[in-house]
Amino acid sequence: MSSSKMWPLTDKRINQSVVTARFAVRGSITKRAWEIKAALAEGDTSFPFSQVVSCNIGNPQLFDQQPLTYFRQVLAGVWLPESLQDSIKLPKEVMVTVKALHKIVNNGKPGAYSHSQGHIGLRKIVAKFIERRDGFAVDPVNLFFSDGASAGVHKLLQMLINSKKSTVLVPTPVYPLYTAAIHLYNGTSRGYLLDEANNWGLDIEEIKKSYKAALAEGLDVNSIVIINPGNPTGACLSKSNIEDVVEFCGQNKIVIIADEVYQENIYVDNKPFVSFKSVVMNSKYKNELQLVSYHSISKGFIGECGKRGGYMELYNISKSVREEFYKLAGVNLCSNIDGQLTTALMCMPPTKDMGDVYKLYEKEKGEILQKLKDKANYLNATLNKIRGIQCNNIEGAMYAFPQFYMPQECIDKCKKDGSKPDILFGMGVLNECGLCIVPGSGFGQREGSYHFRTTFLPSFEKMKDVYARFAKFYAKFLKDFHADEKKLDAWEKKYKN
Amino acid sequence: MSSSKMWPLTDKRINQSVVTARFAVRGSITKRAWEIKAALAEGDTSFPFSQVVSCNIGNPQLFDQQPLTYFRQVLAGVWLPESLQDSIKLPKEVMVTVKALHKIVNNGKPGAYSHSQGHIGLRKIVAKFIERRDGFAVDPVNLFFSDGASAGVHKLLQMLINSKKSTVLVPTPVYPLYTAAIHLYNGTSRGYLLDEANNWGLDIEEIKKSYKAALAEGLDVNSIVIINPGNPTGACLSKSNIEDVVEFCGQNKIVIIADEVYQENIYVDNKPFVSFKSVVMNSKYKNELQLVSYHSISKGFIGECGKRGGYMELYNISKSVREEFYKLAGVNLCSNIDGQLTTALMCMPPTKDMGDVYKLYEKEKGEILQKLKDKANYLNATLNKIRGIQCNNIEGAMYAFPQFYMPQECIDKCKKDGSKPDILFGMGVLNECGLCIVPGSGFGQREGSYHFRTTFLPSFEKMKDVYARFAKFYAKFLKDFHADEKKLDAWEKKYKN
Repeated sequence: MSSSKMWPLTDKRINQSVVTARFAVRGSITKRAWEIKAALAEGDTSFPFSQVVSCNIGNPQLFDQQPLTYFRQVLAGVWLPESLQDSIKLPKEVMVTVKALHKIVNNGKPGAYSHSQGHIGLRKIVAKFIERRDGFAVDPVNLFFSDGASAGVHKLLQMLINSKKSTVLVPTPVYPLYTAAIHLYNGTSRGYLLDEANNWGLDIEEIKKSYKAALAEGLDVNSIVIINPGNPTGACLSKSNIEDVVEFCGQNKIVIIADEVYQENIYVDNKPFVSFKSVVMNSKYKNELQLVSYHSISKGFIGECGKRGGYMELYNISKSVREEFYKLAGVNLCSNIDGQLTTALMCMPPTKDMGDVYKLYEKEKGEILQKLKDKANYLNATLNKIRGIQCNNIEGAMYAFPQFYMPQECIDKCKKDGSKPDILFGMGVLNECGLCIVPGSGFGQREGSYHFRTTFLPSFEKMKDVYARFAKFYAKFLKDFHADEKKLDAWEKKYKN
Repeated sequence: MSSSKMWPLTDKRINQSVVTARFAVRGSITKRAWEIKAALAEGDTSFPFSQVVSCNIGNPQLFDQQPLTYFRQVLAGVWLPESLQDSIKLPKEVMVTVKALHKIVNNGKPGAYSHSQGHIGLRKIVAKFIERRDGFAVDPVNLFFSDGASAGVHKLLQMLINSKKSTVLVPTPVYPLYTAAIHLYNGTSRGYLLDEANNWGLDIEEIKKSYKAALAEGLDVNSIVIINPGNPTGACLSKSNIEDVVEFCGQNKIVIIADEVYQENIYVDNKPFVSFKSVVMNSKYKNELQLVSYHSISKGFIGECGKRGGYMELYNISKSVREEFYKLAGVNLCSNIDGQLTTALMCMPPTKDMGDVYKLYEKEKGEILQKLKDKANYLNATLNKIRGIQCNNIEGAMYAFPQFYMPQECIDKCKKDGSKPDILFGMGVLNECGLCIVPGSGFGQREGSYHFRTTFLPSFEKMKDVYARFAKFYAKFLKDFHADEKKLDAWEKKYKN
C-alpha cells in the first residue's frame, strides 16, 4: 500500500451516507448556540443578551417544568440498595410501588441487564395501559422498550430498508429523525404535504398522490410515518382522518408507523387523542395491517427527556420477524432500566386509593398540562401579532411552526451564496436575540414558503422577553432586506385572515 | 399493485442483513433460558433444577455483586428534585458531590436532554480521568457518552463502513457485537487468530497474515478491533504486544478500535493495564494514528449494566469527521443522563479527604475485585479438573473460554442435521444443568476446536452447585456419544499439561 493513502476516518473515506444526512434539530444553529452558551458561561458580555433560550427541541425540564414528585420518589426507592433504604423517607403508598417494582427487576437488582426487550413485568404494565386506552388485549411479547422512542424508530427503519428502493412516506413537514434515519440506512423517503391552509390537516389525497408518484418512479413503498399530534405542526388528527389512512394502508399493504409520543399533549377539546391501534382494531384490516406505534416518557406532562425511555408496539408482525427485532435489540443488550421503570410508571399512574400521593400527582399533572395549553395559546397570539408571521392554531405537541414572509432580496442573496434563507434567518435570530429555533427547511416545507419551529416551553416571562426581541429583529430583518411593503401586505392578506 | 403481495414486515421482505446477522450472546440458547425462567416462575417443577444460572453474559449485579454505596447515594441525591431533598439523609461529603454534579446538569435538571455528546462538565471529568491514567491532556470535545460502550461501537462502525469492501480485522474469538454490527452495516470482517496455546496471547504475525490475506482479496482494511483485557478470552496484553499493534497500524494507516471496558478487571500482577492511548502517545505515530477507545460502567468493580453508560474517545480525528459523529449522536438526541452521571462518577472516585465515604468506597472496591479474582481462579480450577476440558489462566475480564473435547459421533450427527455441535452441547447444558453458557462458534474458534464462554459471576455456592451438575452432564455427554477413550487421552495430553 502507498504510504500516502489517507487515514480511514477522513471526510472522503467515511460512510458518505452519514456525511450527506441532515438533522436540523441539532444542526449548525444548535451547534452555534452551544458555543454561545459556553462563551456566556465564561463571562463573555459581548452578546446583546445574557442567556440562550433553547427552543430548538422539546426539552421541558430545561425550563420551569418540574418532574412529577411520585416518579422521582419511586425511582429513588427502587435504585437505593437494601442497605440504604433507611436513608430515605417515602410515603407508604409510594413504598408499595417501590416493592412491586423491586420484585420485577430481579428482586431489587435494577443494576443488572434485563431481557433485550425489557423486563417482562414492566412490559406487562405497558400492555395493561394500552389495553385500558384502546379496549383490546395486548401481548407483552410485542412490546420493546428503547432508549427514547428515537432508538425504536431506528430499529424499525433498519428493518424496513432492504434496498435503495425501499421507500417510506413521510409528512412534509416532518420531524427529521425520520428522513435522517431513512437516509442513514440507505433507503428512500418521499413526502406527502400537510395542508397548512387547513391548520396542517392531513389530506388523504396528498398521501395517494405521493404514493402514486413513488410507484411511477419504480420505488417500493413499504411504510408511512404519521405523527399524531404533529411534530412540528402541532396538528391533531380526527378519527375519520385516521380511518382514511388505515383504509389506504390496508388496501395497499403499507406498514403504518404511528409516532404517538405527544398523545397527552392535546390542547383542544374537539380532537381527543385516538390511537392508530384502536382504529386498526375496529377496521376490516385488524388481522393483517402491520402497525408499529411509539410512546415516550420525554413528552406529555412527564418530560423526563434525560432518562431516555419509551416503547414500541408491534402489531400483526409474525414471530419470526419479531425475533429479528429481538436480535437487533440484543446486539445492544438492553435499553436503560431507569427509562424502562419510568415508562412503566407512566403506564400505571397512582390510583385514587393512594390518597395524598394520588392527589399530588393529579394536581401536578393538571397544572403542567394547563400551563402548556396556556403557553401554546400565548405563543400563538404573540407570533400572530407580528407583521409577516402567520401561526396556525396549536392543537397539540410542544411546538409552533409559523410561516413567515421572506424578502426577495434575502432569497436572491442566498441563491448567490448557495445558502438557505431560513438558515440565515435562524442564525440571525440566535445571534441577535439569543433564541435558538430550527429553520423550516430542516423539516421540509412547501417550495417557496418559509417557516421555523420553536417550542413554547420557556416560562411566560422568558417567552415575553425573547419574542419581544424576536419581533424587533424580524422588523429590522425585513427593513435590511428592503422588503416590499405592497408584497408584504398581500402576503398578510393571503395568509392571515 | 397486486393484492397478493406480501406485507413489508415479512421474512423475505425485511432487511436481509438483519436476518443473516448472528449474535450468540443473546441467541437461541439465551432465548430458551428466558422460556425456562418464565416456566419456573410459574411453578413448573419438571426441570432437573430449580433456577437458571445465567452465565451467558457479564451481568455482575444479577448475582451477589452489590452496587457501590457512594454511587447510589450520589445518584439518589442528584435525581431528587429540590422539593424532595429533605426526604433523604446523605453524608455531607456525598452532598458535596451531589451539589457539584447539580451545577453541571443544568443547575439541578438531570431530567433534561444534554448536549448530544453528553454534558460538557461531565466530559471534563472523564477527560481528567484519562489524563491521570495516561499522563497526557485530553480535550473533552473528543469524548462522546453513549448508552453503554456498545452504542458507541455501533456509531464508529457505521462511520467506518462505506462499502462492502470496508473491512475490520477482529480477533478470533471475538465478542460478537463487532461481527454482528459490521454485518448489519454491510461491511466485512476478517479474523486474526489469538494464540490459545500461549494463553490466548496476541501474535502480531497473525494480524499481519490476516491483513495480507484481506488485501489479496481486494478488501479495504480500515481498522482493527483489540479487546484488552480480552472478551471472551480473559487474556491481558503486555505493553510490547500493544507496541507491536501500534507500529503495525501506524505503518499501514489502520484505525485502532480499543475496547478497554475491562481495564479494572485484571487478576494477575505481571500484566498491569496499559491503555492503547498511552502507547500511541509515546510512539512516533502520536500525531496521526487514529485511535478510538471505549470504557464502560457495566464492568470493572462497578457493574452498573442496567444504567447503560460508557464513553468513546476519538484521537487524531479531524474536526469535520468529529462533527459527523456529533450528527450521528444528535439523531438520537443524547445518551441517558444517569449513565452519563455514573460514568463521571467512575472517573472521579472519592478522595482521601472524604473520610468514611472514601474508606467505605475503597473497602467495597477491594472486596469486589478480590472476590472476582478468587472466583476466576475457582472457576479455572473447577473446569480444569474435568476430563476433556482445558481452561487457560483467566488473567482478566469476567469470563472463562475453555476448550473441550467433542466426540466424533456428535460432530457427525450435527453434520447430518446441519446443526452445530457446540450449540447442541450448550442447549444440553442449559436443559440438563440450568446453566446458560454461550457456544464458542458464537465468538469464532479455530476450525475443528470447540469452546464455550461462561462467566464466574455467580456466588461460590452457586458455581459449586452448577458446575458439579455440569461435570456430570459432560461425562454423560461423552458416554452418550461414545467418546473414544484413547482419543480423549491423547486430547488431554495435547492440551493439558
